[in-house]
Amino acid sequence: MTIAQIAEESGLSTATVSKVLNGRPDVSASTRRLVQEVLVSSGYRRRPNTDAAQLIDVVFNDFDSPWATEIIRGAAAAAQSEGLTVAFTALSEGDERRVWFDHITSRGTRGIILLLSQITERQRGQLLARGLPFVVIDPTAEPGPEVSSVGATNWSGGLAATNHLIELGHSRIAIITGPPALLCSRARLDGYRGALERAGLRVDEQLVRPGDFRVKAGYEQAKILFELRDRPSAIFAGNDLAALGVLRAAREAGLRVPDDVSVVGFDDIPLAEWSTPTLTTVRQPLTEMAAVAVGILLEIAESGPQKRRVELATDLVVRESTAAPR
Amino acid sequence: MTIAQIAEESGLSTATVSKVLNGRPDVSASTRRLVQEVLVSSGYRRRPNTDAAQLIDVVFNDFDSPWATEIIRGAAAAAQSEGLTVAFTALSEGDERRVWFDHITSRGTRGIILLLSQITERQRGQLLARGLPFVVIDPTAEPGPEVSSVGATNWSGGLAATNHLIELGHSRIAIITGPPALLCSRARLDGYRGALERAGLRVDEQLVRPGDFRVKAGYEQAKILFELRDRPSAIFAGNDLAALGVLRAAREAGLRVPDDVSVVGFDDIPLAEWSTPTLTTVRQPLTEMAAVAVGILLEIAESGPQKRRVELATDLVVRESTAAPR
Repeated sequence: MTIAQIAEESGLSTATVSKVLNGRPDVSASTRRLVQEVLVSSGYRRRPNTDAAQLIDVVFNDFDSPWATEIIRGAAAAAQSEGLTVAFTALSEGDERRVWFDHITSRGTRGIILLLSQITERQRGQLLARGLPFVVIDPTAEPGPEVSSVGATNWSGGLAATNHLIELGHSRIAIITGPPALLCSRARLDGYRGALERAGLRVDEQLVRPGDFRVKAGYEQAKILFELRDRPSAIFAGNDLAALGVLRAAREAGLRVPDDVSVVGFDDIPLAEWSTPTLTTVRQPLTEMAAVAVGILLEIAESGPQKRRVELATDLVVRESTAAPR
Repeated sequence: MTIAQIAEESGLSTATVSKVLNGRPDVSASTRRLVQEVLVSSGYRRRPNTDAAQLIDVVFNDFDSPWATEIIRGAAAAAQSEGLTVAFTALSEGDERRVWFDHITSRGTRGIILLLSQITERQRGQLLARGLPFVVIDPTAEPGPEVSSVGATNWSGGLAATNHLIELGHSRIAIITGPPALLCSRARLDGYRGALERAGLRVDEQLVRPGDFRVKAGYEQAKILFELRDRPSAIFAGNDLAALGVLRAAREAGLRVPDDVSVVGFDDIPLAEWSTPTLTTVRQPLTEMAAVAVGILLEIAESGPQKRRVELATDLVVRESTAAPR
């Protein structure tokens, strides 16, 4: 089927049809659907073959994180119960985004779960044009139209973590954020600000430190905080890994946790209950998030693109790393 | 091609051909090769199709372990550099072994990497009969003939860890082992025994405790050790996770690490340098082991079954958790 034929059947210009097929972003959703319908009804769109259709792809940035492990485990379990296998692509920082994308789309897949990954407008368009389902877990930005996403209630989690510290009596509470590009980081930060403001506490910008969800940044930012003349009595770390870095910095500074400084993490990775001291944290249901993502993917594969936004509840888990200030 | 035809061409009985096709173990390697040659030359053996051949399968027992993450990352990176994707199957304890096996073999794959997994004699035979390459990382037992395996020098690692403690002046040194079914656990234990014996120290069976590579068992076994009247001044934990459990048990018992008790781990997972105190451990080159496994797999896919045994070197990494006894 030529572009001209598609244009004739759909009543669109050949330029517009070409835009849709190339995944260009400047096309309305209704136009794209129209082209897709013509393609499907004419049998043009290649159906994924049986082998490829037994795969679900999970793609994420190269995070050295127990968080990632939990997501993979959840996705693999959910996929296996449907007789599917999870294929796994880790992007390194130097990787050309294009490479994995071309590889997966040419090989074929039942669908793609993207974790903390950026997907370009163009790729989004190409996935939609090819009818390849995809779901984003913890998107880097507001996902566009026709994009389904799964996350946790990061704002509520940030609020709960900060409220817990306020209720213990802390008033100088610092935060070490995740990468600012990630929606989940911004939501946690806003929850922190919201809790402080509601309690009538001023947000001291000196106590808002940029992290990146890794242990090392948690360690380095905590060192800066501990050197302040008026140091915080509590730190809400961006995630559990950053909190482990804070524990180390506290120890090196001769500060006892929780006696001298309270620490709250985020995620509840398996090691959070084995750190010294054990970590008060906000639990994300990671394996469940992955399972929900697999479910949405299969729904899309069945019934076509849809915009589903799911946020699963977070829970505050109180352990040893928080106490009233002395 | 019927079994009778294969029998005629190979000069074997139909019963023997049937045994080979069903993967029965009581067939000699040369007989199996003979049948394979007939199958290949007659074009009987299905060639994996293009899509499936772009996959490498990694299958392992459901270990909640940073160890597993490192292996997956290594395999994914090595596979990606060959334009392949890693598909990932986690076996839960309840899983029917048959299910994953049938799923993967019917879907097709470039080959299978098995981690800490048991593969039955029958499955081994079936993989060989179908010409599906496979490599075992850290096998549960001496891998059979025609099986390639990749591991680390676990015996040398156990020896180095124990020698390090002996050189510091310890003489009551305990060990918490990994699962006894795993070759790597037994090799580490033998390295421990070897070091003690060479130093003229008696192996006190009371100080040889059964663990399972998980934090909780490390914690529980260390509690037992700390309650002994003549408690050990040093513990060689089966792996880093078990060592984290030991750190916790020490803290609860009011023992300082390394002042009151020294602790050595195994693996050097990323968190080993962030624990409190940081962990002296034996580094396994996990991502490299995975890359070597991928390489052997592709060699087998190219040139047929071969028995390769690779053990990559381990290194003692000395950090804060070990010191001379007081």
